[in-house]
Amino acid sequence: WGVLAGIEECAWLLASLNKDINVYSMKEGTVFGQLEPVFVIEGDYLDFCVYETALLGFLCQASGIATKAARCKKIAQDRFVISFGARRIHPAIAPMVERSAYIGGCDGVACVKSAELLGIDPMGTVPHALILLLGSSVNAMKAFDRIIEQEIKRVALIDTLEDEKFEAIKVAQGLGKKLYGVRLDTPKSRRGNFLELLKEVRWELDLRGFKGVKLFVSGGIDEPEISKLNPLVDAYGIGTSISNAPILDFAMDIVEIEGMPIAKRGKFSGEKKVLRCPKCFKRKIFPKYEKNPKFCNCKAGYESPLLPLIKRGRLVRRLPEPSKIREYVLRQMEFYRIGDV
Amino acid sequence: WGVLAGIEECAWLLASLNKDINVYSMKEGTVFGQLEPVFVIEGDYLDFCVYETALLGFLCQASGIATKAARCKKIAQDRFVISFGARRIHPAIAPMVERSAYIGGCDGVACVKSAELLGIDPMGTVPHALILLLGSSVNAMKAFDRIIEQEIKRVALIDTLEDEKFEAIKVAQGLGKKLYGVRLDTPKSRRGNFLELLKEVRWELDLRGFKGVKLFVSGGIDEPEISKLNPLVDAYGIGTSISNAPILDFAMDIVEIEGMPIAKRGKFSGEKKVLRCPKCFKRKIFPKYEKNPKFCNCKAGYESPLLPLIKRGRLVRRLPEPSKIREYVLRQMEFYRIGDV
Amino acid sequence: WGVLAGIEECAWLLASLNKDINVYSMKEGTVFGQLEPVFVIEGDYLDFCVYETALLGFLCQASGIATKAARCKKIAQDRFVISFGARRIHPAIAPMVERSAYIGGCDGVACVKSAELLGIDPMGTVPHALILLLGSSVNAMKAFDRIIEQEIKRVALIDTLEDEKFEAIKVAQGLGKKLYGVRLDTPKSRRGNFLELLKEVRWELDLRGFKGVKLFVSGGIDEPEISKLNPLVDAYGIGTSISNAPILDFAMDIVEIEGMPIAKRGKFSGEKKVLRCPKCFKRKIFPKYEKNPKFCNCKAGYESPLLPLIKRGRLVRRLPEPSKIREYVLRQMEFYRIGDV
Amino acid sequence: WGVLAGIEECAWLLASLNKDINVYSMKEGTVFGQLEPVFVIEGDYLDFCVYETALLGFLCQASGIATKAARCKKIAQDRFVISFGARRIHPAIAPMVERSAYIGGCDGVACVKSAELLGIDPMGTVPHALILLLGSSVNAMKAFDRIIEQEIKRVALIDTLEDEKFEAIKVAQGLGKKLYGVRLDTPKSRRGNFLELLKEVRWELDLRGFKGVKLFVSGGIDEPEISKLNPLVDAYGIGTSISNAPILDFAMDIVEIEGMPIAKRGKFSGEKKVLRCPKCFKRKIFPKYEKNPKFCNCKAGYESPLLPLIKRGRLVRRLPEPSKIREYVLRQMEFYRIGDV
Amino acid sequence: WGVLAGIEECAWLLASLNKDINVYSMKEGTVFGQLEPVFVIEGDYLDFCVYETALLGFLCQASGIATKAARCKKIAQDRFVISFGARRIHPAIAPMVERSAYIGGCDGVACVKSAELLGIDPMGTVPHALILLLGSSVNAMKAFDRIIEQEIKRVALIDTLEDEKFEAIKVAQGLGKKLYGVRLDTPKSRRGNFLELLKEVRWELDLRGFKGVKLFVSGGIDEPEISKLNPLVDAYGIGTSISNAPILDFAMDIVEIEGMPIAKRGKFSGEKKVLRCPKCFKRKIFPKYEKNPKFCNCKAGYESPLLPLIKRGRLVRRLPEPSKIREYVLRQMEFYRIGDV
Amino acid sequence: WGVLAGIEECAWLLASLNKDINVYSMKEGTVFGQLEPVFVIEGDYLDFCVYETALLGFLCQASGIATKAARCKKIAQDRFVISFGARRIHPAIAPMVERSAYIGGCDGVACVKSAELLGIDPMGTVPHALILLLGSSVNAMKAFDRIIEQEIKRVALIDTLEDEKFEAIKVAQGLGKKLYGVRLDTPKSRRGNFLELLKEVRWELDLRGFKGVKLFVSGGIDEPEISKLNPLVDAYGIGTSISNAPILDFAMDIVEIEGMPIAKRGKFSGEKKVLRCPKCFKRKIFPKYEKNPKFCNCKAGYESPLLPLIKRGRLVRRLPEPSKIREYVLRQMEFYRIGDV
Repeated sequence: WGVLAGIEECAWLLASLNKDINVYSMKEGTVFGQLEPVFVIEGDYLDFCVYETALLGFLCQASGIATKAARCKKIAQDRFVISFGARRIHPAIAPMVERSAYIGGCDGVACVKSAELLGIDPMGTVPHALILLLGSSVNAMKAFDRIIEQEIKRVALIDTLEDEKFEAIKVAQGLGKKLYGVRLDTPKSRRGNFLELLKEVRWELDLRGFKGVKLFVSGGIDEPEISKLNPLVDAYGIGTSISNAPILDFAMDIVEIEGMPIAKRGKFSGEKKVLRCPKCFKRKIFPKYEKNPKFCNCKAGYESPLLPLIKRGRLVRRLPEPSKIREYVLRQMEFYRIGDV
Repeated sequence: WGVLAGIEECAWLLASLNKDINVYSMKEGTVFGQLEPVFVIEGDYLDFCVYETALLGFLCQASGIATKAARCKKIAQDRFVISFGARRIHPAIAPMVERSAYIGGCDGVACVKSAELLGIDPMGTVPHALILLLGSSVNAMKAFDRIIEQEIKRVALIDTLEDEKFEAIKVAQGLGKKLYGVRLDTPKSRRGNFLELLKEVRWELDLRGFKGVKLFVSGGIDEPEISKLNPLVDAYGIGTSISNAPILDFAMDIVEIEGMPIAKRGKFSGEKKVLRCPKCFKRKIFPKYEKNPKFCNCKAGYESPLLPLIKRGRLVRRLPEPSKIREYVLRQMEFYRIGDV
Repeated sequence: WGVLAGIEECAWLLASLNKDINVYSMKEGTVFGQLEPVFVIEGDYLDFCVYETALLGFLCQASGIATKAARCKKIAQDRFVISFGARRIHPAIAPMVERSAYIGGCDGVACVKSAELLGIDPMGTVPHALILLLGSSVNAMKAFDRIIEQEIKRVALIDTLEDEKFEAIKVAQGLGKKLYGVRLDTPKSRRGNFLELLKEVRWELDLRGFKGVKLFVSGGIDEPEISKLNPLVDAYGIGTSISNAPILDFAMDIVEIEGMPIAKRGKFSGEKKVLRCPKCFKRKIFPKYEKNPKFCNCKAGYESPLLPLIKRGRLVRRLPEPSKIREYVLRQMEFYRIGDV
Repeated sequence: WGVLAGIEECAWLLASLNKDINVYSMKEGTVFGQLEPVFVIEGDYLDFCVYETALLGFLCQASGIATKAARCKKIAQDRFVISFGARRIHPAIAPMVERSAYIGGCDGVACVKSAELLGIDPMGTVPHALILLLGSSVNAMKAFDRIIEQEIKRVALIDTLEDEKFEAIKVAQGLGKKLYGVRLDTPKSRRGNFLELLKEVRWELDLRGFKGVKLFVSGGIDEPEISKLNPLVDAYGIGTSISNAPILDFAMDIVEIEGMPIAKRGKFSGEKKVLRCPKCFKRKIFPKYEKNPKFCNCKAGYESPLLPLIKRGRLVRRLPEPSKIREYVLRQMEFYRIGDV
Repeated sequence: WGVLAGIEECAWLLASLNKDINVYSMKEGTVFGQLEPVFVIEGDYLDFCVYETALLGFLCQASGIATKAARCKKIAQDRFVISFGARRIHPAIAPMVERSAYIGGCDGVACVKSAELLGIDPMGTVPHALILLLGSSVNAMKAFDRIIEQEIKRVALIDTLEDEKFEAIKVAQGLGKKLYGVRLDTPKSRRGNFLELLKEVRWELDLRGFKGVKLFVSGGIDEPEISKLNPLVDAYGIGTSISNAPILDFAMDIVEIEGMPIAKRGKFSGEKKVLRCPKCFKRKIFPKYEKNPKFCNCKAGYESPLLPLIKRGRLVRRLPEPSKIREYVLRQMEFYRIGDV
Repeated sequence: WGVLAGIEECAWLLASLNKDINVYSMKEGTVFGQLEPVFVIEGDYLDFCVYETALLGFLCQASGIATKAARCKKIAQDRFVISFGARRIHPAIAPMVERSAYIGGCDGVACVKSAELLGIDPMGTVPHALILLLGSSVNAMKAFDRIIEQEIKRVALIDTLEDEKFEAIKVAQGLGKKLYGVRLDTPKSRRGNFLELLKEVRWELDLRGFKGVKLFVSGGIDEPEISKLNPLVDAYGIGTSISNAPILDFAMDIVEIEGMPIAKRGKFSGEKKVLRCPKCFKRKIFPKYEKNPKFCNCKAGYESPLLPLIKRGRLVRRLPEPSKIREYVLRQMEFYRIGDV
């Protein structure tokens, strides 16, 4: 399965052409399955074929990122997942990348501009540089605490100059109840049994009365790390695995010419209907002109996720806010498992 | 090793700041090794720290793409390698992606705009759509041949509606000597032993007097496919593996503060010198203030690839054309092997 | 477990000797387990020892083939399984091979002579040669349809000259309702994801109103392929894996000499009784002279599958028809699983 | 590579048809490579197509057996390899199986009739039964020695009732200098580290002055066992792995119709020439009507292994004795390695 | 988990020092889990630090052996497990090794002295040497039977000079009802499928009326062998895998200094409490000064396995007999599985 | 191969018996091969059989430890290897364990008593406890430096409370030129890429002028770790892998009785001679009474490493000092590789 993203940009592009075309698509954020058409264009091929590369580019990269974000969030469950990977991709697409990460399920993003576009607060911690400049994590956190408004949570980075265990104790004793969390961005050369290290930090904090301090981790986090560290972690900062996620390889194929189904080898010809049960999320694909069941085995009436987007060249659907799309994704994700196809 | 790309954008950004900083960097296209600093900024940290995300973004993604392109070209040797993957990434970065692919070693790119920016001709073949619309590959190629100027090479796509073997025979017999090549974009479900299929197409073409017709392949091509198909293939169209290449994870670390070496755990402190032998391309890293050998074991005098880029805020180096960078990469690649670190 | 075959030939050989021997054996088609004696000869060793090689030869090869056929049929369930492998073994044993395949569970055989001996109709499709000679699958099927009696089912071979998808559409549209099935004997070089190819052919046929046309596959089919392709296949043509099946390595061992148990190292001495529950098919082996339970845990009375075959040199059991043996095998197979020992 | 066998039976069948056909084939025993045609029939397709199953059956099984025998012999080098597997296949094909094993390189066969047809002496040892009946290996060997003519070598089976080590010592001390060899047919349950057991038997025989007694092994011997046991073994008895060898899957394909090359998907069209260097055994395949090099890189003039067999329906080649074919195979095998394709 | 052993020696050493220290420890034989403190010393560090090497040595090796013995016994269930490995370790520690094996769960030990110290009878069988000296197993067993008191069970070693099957039959027929068991110490070179060999010996004994004769095995026995052979074996003799068992790597760490928790990196600071449910054996670790639940989820009241051992330098706990410790281990083992952590 | 140890204890035991026996043995420290007899006793079996367990115990454990030490030293080459594992085994055998480790090739041992018995200085570093008690590594090293005599090398433990990198810098700057080395006993949870960590520590020390400070590592070191860390490490502290090394499983077998060769199944009968070339260290085993070559292929005259140890009950060989044995081992080790048998 994948999470569909990039629809908004496709819609604006096609609506701007002023051509007599009809477009149907699934809603942005829809979880779709193998072989399902997600975006259907009807019209004179010459009116839109030159935009194939752009349209595929909008969908493939955004959907790849949204899908990876959804998988990470699914595994992390109610733990925070924050997109930290803007620094790994060209700044021109940082807003697109973080929007896709957010609608896929990330709870926050690190980039100020992206957050602004999404209408949310950016998230992050102090940088290693501040600690190096001020000489220690405690100094850095105290300075931060003096200057930064109180709404911002105090999260200390504890892997810069000292061992995580002692750094954690020091910042906790230094900031006291103001400390919201500690972040371990532990370098590879020191990251042996990371779960054991987290246990130790947790133990030492608890022992000294800091049971409320959260544990944040970052650095090379992907699906397997999340499964493994969940027992102790409260929040994940995820970089490259989301921002450089594998794209989804959509193709834009002709499947009907003037009403006659025809498709190249390897593709299924004819326009299709997708049915989805709104209750159990089971799905089926039918030729468009075939009759099909009205009701799922679970008794619910099927819905068709392929909806009109553009009619005779004009946009006919309201494009939702990122936060609404994100909610829609999270709602659907309850019905999917990581290993599903 | 990796191929450095993205320097030009970094240079313009930093030069536009009008701050009193000095920057040293390797030249765009330099092949660098593990632990080597490629970009050094001296100055007041507050003058540039806010651009960390943008600078890393320029370097990480472009270098990742250039490196993958260089690896593919290295394996393909004198066979053509064309970047086909613009359709897999957001159109806003297509020129950056194809520029990086080109300087890494690709012989051509598919996107018209990108090619224009690079000062080269775009490359491609007829699309599957043309064949579907005109009913057969032969029809499509004949129409193409009638209309398109003669400088453009005639490359037939032969996997759309019929088996590659018979399609190859038909287009060869249809176009005769005008046919430059055939392209197999064979779908996954039909791609069994691809090398055997290529052998068969080659045999049938040769048998009928078409020994000069080239074999192009595309679809899911990456390093292992290239190694395997080299005996029969004349040109590769490479998509996702180049345009969605794994980024290189550069970090922007403080290593000296007012002359004192200091670096966070996991990083080597102090400014560094990199020495490179211009003859055998062996490399060494030294602390900047340490004396070091003038000559390599192979007797050549060492050069230092870290050169001034910006002095006191002003650009001091001429930034070369993409085609010059590409030549520089190819020249260096002769000294590296795929398995080197 | 294995399926016992070859008993009939052993019986005729031993009965022809006119020697004072007694023979007990399991019935042809009996599913037997590890260590169970299947064939017991009592008499003067010199009267029969010279036939050891022949007797083992009858049992080992026939039982190997019947066992493999039973495994394939077990996995294919109610889908057709046809023995296509006569061309892989010497013609002198083709009837034995196909008889063994049939009693093991195959639904049909390809060889005319073998089928005649089994009292069934041979099965097959048009050959590739007919299509090559008449120029296309449609031509070949039309010629076949004109000439061959109507009882014979029309099954088109669709992998000869064109892609399976388009060939399927053409023969379906050419023959219309007369078309019974299509057979994919897809060559290795084109057999990528075979299940996907089958899905595509199924889709295209269904889309055009040919939901009743069956899918036959052949070429390199063995147990794993059957498990994988079952969702879409209606009939399997199985060649080498049945006709060249691994033999079962029976041995002919002395276990008693004049009433004294004695056996070489590695063999269990003494004559044995095998008990089999007719209800749950659980089995036990006992020394012949030991008392043993009359009833299985499931309350059914045990039966002994080792029955008199020859008494004092004369055949005392009626040897059943192949079709009866086959039914007996299929009845037993319901109680076994592929992974049983 | 494979060793071609079954040509003689094909020749007699086709020569008996009295049809106007020409046949070219490689000589029986020729080592051929991938894609090489080994048997070419020219004529009216209806004159011979009904024999396709029989012709393939002759070639596939015999060549499979000859190839496996050649591989085993290649690995065993100058050690004896005897075909023991007649008991594993139907007696009707025992002569074909053992003829194929012999021409592939076996030094002897166990079956009396097969040996007679091959014009050689059958080989074997006393059976386990004799030892059981006479009570011990020593008794059996002494009886054997009393009765059997002196030309027959005395080889004792030493795994029946006692441990191989002590049985070897006993038969050696019992028969003295007359003992030619001992055979270990050690059962699986006692076959731990077989090489160590052989070392021990060798040591104990040598220690007592029986350095000349040969070590024979049998039971489950195939290529890996031979490689492993070569340091100590003088002769191998090989059963199932040769007589039940995987068949070679030749196909009988149309490649030209009235001078026009045409072949189904997956096959190379047009009649072909195979060239083979008689010195270095390098090989090449060309379309029949193409010019081709006269000389190999090693300066020797190429030969063409495809020679006339039948002209206008009459046999035109003398079919050689099995022993000559065997010599031809062994001569060629010096140029091949087990891992070659 | 591990089985704690070596406490007694630690206790005597520390009690002999006459220093003002307090010691808490788990009872010898306690099954403990990861991270649990098993031995706690309070006092002036200089009073005991010099004994760190000795104390760890007592605990690490003895606990390693006891743990391995417990695992073997757990798998063997009610079959006998006898420690045979004294010959593999220095005689100075044989009593310690066998005591640890015994308390871990072994049913007996082979060493006379060790058995005496444990207050049990030593166990063993006749040696290979006796059989070699008297010429056969039967002779050896008859001599043994004549001379050795009747309380000692007659267990024949049956792998010395003849095959196990025939040796078993001979000693059974020679000693008749007096034979208690047969031991297979089958050498590696003859140990093919050991389970099959055991089945055969069992069959032959049963067939001749010796159903009561036990099967003992020895030689290279470890956990996987036990799991595999359990269906047929009545007793295991285990050597190297117990006496050379991997040690448990306890460390003696400072965790509090004058009431302040402090521990080196990788260790949890502060004194700890371990709670263990006496009913379901679930366990928890808490800082010593933290309040903790009185009752387990299963309603039972928690107990603390860390008990006072030495107070102000004097031993305050009675150290139990080995047989009592062993019972304690076996009682706990019912709650653990081999794969638990 | 293995390194023979434990001979001295065997010699004293047997010499103390006052029995009329002769003993031949290889010298302690001899590197021997598979199947070679290392210790031969001639005499009345009853005179010594009761000591079988003790004699095997002396040889098996000591030789296992010496062999493992030799392997580690072989890989470490001229880097220091120190036996740190006394804390893992019972104190009663600490001297035996460390003597075996030393003669196998260790350069030093940690235990004071063992070192005294070996006539060498014990080796070690400050313990973690000292650092915890004094609050930091620098404090601990300064205290150590004030009090401990100057001959003792100053090696700082740098993993206790802070990160290795910063601790290394601090102790180097604190002790200056007096610092001999730093030891990384890095805990598992922090041991990610250990080689990278070592590189970083090396870089930071070198950068600050401490190129002479050695790097010591300890904690879980075995053969693979040594191979991997050799590029940066100057000394290894090896614990469990040497002191708990797998024993060598010698057996004490009867091979001749009154001049007649006889051995149980699995053993080679008869007394044996071992020949060893003093130049190329090739080896051969012969029956004692067989003639054998005087000279090796490399022209050197063979020597026999089995030499008289006890004649008629009295010790006839001088038993060498541990340091001499160690030299002998190291000399031989030049001729062996880790992978030899």
